[in-house]
Amino acid sequence: MIFEMAQLEIYSGMESAFENGVTLAVPLFQRARGCHGLQLLRSVEQPSRYTLMVTWATVDDHMVYFRESEDFQEWRRLVGEFFASSPQVAHVQMAVAGF
Amino acid sequence: MIFEMAQLEIYSGMESAFENGVTLAVPLFQRARGCHGLQLLRSVEQPSRYTLMVTWATVDDHMVYFRESEDFQEWRRLVGEFFASSPQVAHVQMAVAGF
Repeated sequence: MIFEMAQLEIYSGMESAFENGVTLAVPLFQRARGCHGLQLLRSVEQPSRYTLMVTWATVDDHMVYFRESEDFQEWRRLVGEFFASSPQVAHVQMAVAGF
Repeated sequence: MIFEMAQLEIYSGMESAFENGVTLAVPLFQRARGCHGLQLLRSVEQPSRYTLMVTWATVDDHMVYFRESEDFQEWRRLVGEFFASSPQVAHVQMAVAGF
């Protein structure tokens, strides 16, 4: 299992509209191959900065199967207009599970 | 509930020692006031880059009570020598819980 961790900078004043777009997009991820979870986190210190955490079975489930799907286009239609800059995407995996 | 999200850049070759230090430090966080979880995530694309996610009841539990504790000094003794640059720390909160 890996996590897509995307840093998103949203135009100031568009935060509620963006969060609404993400909520509308949840079903796209729920039906995506190998997708096991989605959470949107918002910065306390910089409220226009968000981190999208998506759980995927493999990197390819995200980068190949989702990115090349119609649902990815729909995702971008729902939220892309709110991005003040290009999303910074990384994939991370659990190193220490802690508690 | 808020999450401390710390971006950590570790000296190349010290990743295993760093992960071991984090594992040893888990009890410090387990007994910290308001601390409800810890996970260390490692970048797939840049394996010297980590994200530490710590769940706190409030920002003050992290920034005041933990940062000013003896256990914070112990945390830095366990892992500080592996940091190739200053940790970049943000606090984030749930915006869309998704699934």
